[in-house]
Amino acid sequence: MEGSEFEEHGAQMLHYVTSYMDSVRSRRALPDVQPGFMQELIPSRAPETPDKWEDVFKDIERVIMPGVTHWQSPNFFAYFPTAQSYPSMLADMLCNAIGCIGFTWASCPSCTELEVVMMDWLGQLLHLPDSFLFCKPGKGGGVIQGTASEATLMCLLSARTLFFKKEREKNPDVTMGQLVDRLVAYCSDQAHSSVERAGLIGAVRMRKLETDEKGSLRGPTLKAAILEDKAKGLLPFFVCATSGTTTSCAFDNLKELGPVCQEHGVWMHVDAAYAGSAFICPEFRPLIDGVEHAMSFNFNPHKWLKIMFDCSALWVQNTDYLRYAFDVDPLYLKHENQGVMPDFRHWQIPLGRRFRSLKIWFVLRLYGQRKLQEAIRKDVRLAHEFETMVRSDDRFEIAADVILGLVCFRLKGENELSERLLKLLNADGRIHLVPSKMKGNFFLRLAICGPDTQSSDVRRAWDVIRELTDVVLKSDAKS
Amino acid sequence: MEGSEFEEHGAQMLHYVTSYMDSVRSRRALPDVQPGFMQELIPSRAPETPDKWEDVFKDIERVIMPGVTHWQSPNFFAYFPTAQSYPSMLADMLCNAIGCIGFTWASCPSCTELEVVMMDWLGQLLHLPDSFLFCKPGKGGGVIQGTASEATLMCLLSARTLFFKKEREKNPDVTMGQLVDRLVAYCSDQAHSSVERAGLIGAVRMRKLETDEKGSLRGPTLKAAILEDKAKGLLPFFVCATSGTTTSCAFDNLKELGPVCQEHGVWMHVDAAYAGSAFICPEFRPLIDGVEHAMSFNFNPHKWLKIMFDCSALWVQNTDYLRYAFDVDPLYLKHENQGVMPDFRHWQIPLGRRFRSLKIWFVLRLYGQRKLQEAIRKDVRLAHEFETMVRSDDRFEIAADVILGLVCFRLKGENELSERLLKLLNADGRIHLVPSKMKGNFFLRLAICGPDTQSSDVRRAWDVIRELTDVVLKSDAKS
Repeated sequence: MEGSEFEEHGAQMLHYVTSYMDSVRSRRALPDVQPGFMQELIPSRAPETPDKWEDVFKDIERVIMPGVTHWQSPNFFAYFPTAQSYPSMLADMLCNAIGCIGFTWASCPSCTELEVVMMDWLGQLLHLPDSFLFCKPGKGGGVIQGTASEATLMCLLSARTLFFKKEREKNPDVTMGQLVDRLVAYCSDQAHSSVERAGLIGAVRMRKLETDEKGSLRGPTLKAAILEDKAKGLLPFFVCATSGTTTSCAFDNLKELGPVCQEHGVWMHVDAAYAGSAFICPEFRPLIDGVEHAMSFNFNPHKWLKIMFDCSALWVQNTDYLRYAFDVDPLYLKHENQGVMPDFRHWQIPLGRRFRSLKIWFVLRLYGQRKLQEAIRKDVRLAHEFETMVRSDDRFEIAADVILGLVCFRLKGENELSERLLKLLNADGRIHLVPSKMKGNFFLRLAICGPDTQSSDVRRAWDVIRELTDVVLKSDAKS
Repeated sequence: MEGSEFEEHGAQMLHYVTSYMDSVRSRRALPDVQPGFMQELIPSRAPETPDKWEDVFKDIERVIMPGVTHWQSPNFFAYFPTAQSYPSMLADMLCNAIGCIGFTWASCPSCTELEVVMMDWLGQLLHLPDSFLFCKPGKGGGVIQGTASEATLMCLLSARTLFFKKEREKNPDVTMGQLVDRLVAYCSDQAHSSVERAGLIGAVRMRKLETDEKGSLRGPTLKAAILEDKAKGLLPFFVCATSGTTTSCAFDNLKELGPVCQEHGVWMHVDAAYAGSAFICPEFRPLIDGVEHAMSFNFNPHKWLKIMFDCSALWVQNTDYLRYAFDVDPLYLKHENQGVMPDFRHWQIPLGRRFRSLKIWFVLRLYGQRKLQEAIRKDVRLAHEFETMVRSDDRFEIAADVILGLVCFRLKGENELSERLLKLLNADGRIHLVPSKMKGNFFLRLAICGPDTQSSDVRRAWDVIRELTDVVLKSDAKS
């Protein structure tokens, strides 16, 4: 494909993108296909000679779209939002043109340097403590990870290395196996599945601690667990606190957990994957008061800040701990300016990395702080609007405090009623939600997701929910 | 930004992309900037209100380009190539429009289903054994990983889980710590740094074994190591064989290693990150004869197959082993069709994943097998052309067999001469190379990288090298 053809096909694709976004509301949010549907639609082998662009382009609607779950639709209320925006897309086009792999400073200085500045821009927007920023005194700084799962894992592994070094100083013969059998990490019983997974990968025990009635992990619970484990000869070393759980958007109490971690020399990591974006609004920032006690803090701009996947922002108070987590340094990756600016390959699980800070730069500049704040506030307002509708119908109850853009609700009574409602909703497909469960209570999660979700969309969703609730309760009355 | 503005700015960006590619040859391959250069070029905080598009667009040349290492330049010969192509860029635009996260089948059926078919297309192009394909009987299949580092780690962790289960069957009280202290993995002393890192993350011993004079790990060496370790009571469980090392593009002998691994019940993983793309050409396919003994095989289409980063293709003979590596299954990720098609979140380290199979689909269709083969053959031809020039100058010697698109060469005599030559070359900046070392021999690596590198570029590179060699040898003669 020549440059001129690329510009022509690219213009066609740009138009397809805007048409898709303009019409996504009218597509079924959850597709109506069966597993294996695609195998009949495309050949079983790659072609020998080139297919025509027109045929490939046509196949987007014929082959791909019938099986797409429309995450960017205003009728998609499942999981948490995944960011999408035109400025982010433009930045990705540039990222692909440059096509660099920024594993060291020398491999593309701009890639590393823009990331350093952007992580400070983001950190300042969130009013993170100075100790997390490159531009302030100390050893703090941030780095883009692919996902929150990787950020949690990276911090758990860094903490493991730190403890291994400490134990080695006391006893030079201690093995990694002896250590991992004694290490113990903690999270709440509401923490994301990736936290448990980080424990499995790191080969360490991950203890899930009970939360209070609001789904929040409290200081006394953690303290009791640490003392209990220390008495058994175990080594408490890591706590993953969650600010905004996936289940119900609950917040662990950092102000209580932080001092407990500091007293016992435990690494506190804060996973604010979804909620983090909201902290650019001063009114939500108190939700992470106590973050100054954390060794590391992570959130996903790629969820709720218009910066597209993958872009998970991780800050640490001491970047040496990340850098030394695995000290592997082959000749072909050495360069003359080592040690002056970060070589981010040491700060992450993979070696390769794209020029992802471009999309932070484009988005923060082309929206500006205020418009990003407005977008967050709009979604929170819509969530409360939906909450009010739910509360006004006495067949329903709210299952968790509505704090940001997530509403957890259920039909009063047995779980089975809400389970049936969810099944009907997803079979219907006009809107899409996923369920969760807390303290035995099954509920539906409605998260405001699409970039253009409006009050009318939320009201329409509520109409669909009520319509299908009638069906559930009618059949229940009959049986 | 409205849709109409996006189309307008997008067209501007498309044109910037083609202009960049058309003129990249004339830019200095390695930028002439010092660490910290960017901090003076941009504000230290994000703006309150939106910046103008025109200003952002202008800043690409003012702020970004001065510090870019031009990986897509025909004068860039460092590391290994990183793929770039217009069809791949078009696919990424579509991927961003859909903006889905395909962690389960239900979260976007098309995302999972296209990946299943594309991994079979790719596997067939490489003539992988049927046992690796979804479309053939058995439990084989493939999945897109972010990087080869993650693929190696994922397989090492899967093997660790498998061995833990086996050991638990023999002794239900065995702990993970007791196991990791006995587990031992192997790679060659030429393996990529990410293999050593996978061992560190997995908390297992990674033994580097000596290679033969060509940098190839041989069967008898592995066998001796396994027997020695077994005699010590250790548990050999994993071998990472390399097909095309980063150092010199050497090939471990899979035909010898495979049977040793099978005899001792060891998981053989093949890392063909760079070289893998070449196996779409039948003449290079014999380089991985013996791959049928491997439990897993990985290569990076995002290096040499015009499919852009990130896209690392991993196949396994038994997908259950990946799936059960970490069995974590929260309610909010469950869906009705579980188990029929893969839920790829179980097959990788992160949870989230983009719709990356789109770019495989676009590239394989818009080039077709033959054009992709031609591109590989062109690069290999250029490497041999460069080899011939090096051999014709008796100041130089070739440091390793030229098998694919990498030429390792050095000035005859002390390492220091080649070290000085490399320093001069990178200070000059017209072309960019990185060094490596094998068996004490320091050498320069010239990898054919840019998507449009021609014979004239390679000849020009050779002119630059000879020019600066004159400088090195003149100053050497004086001193």
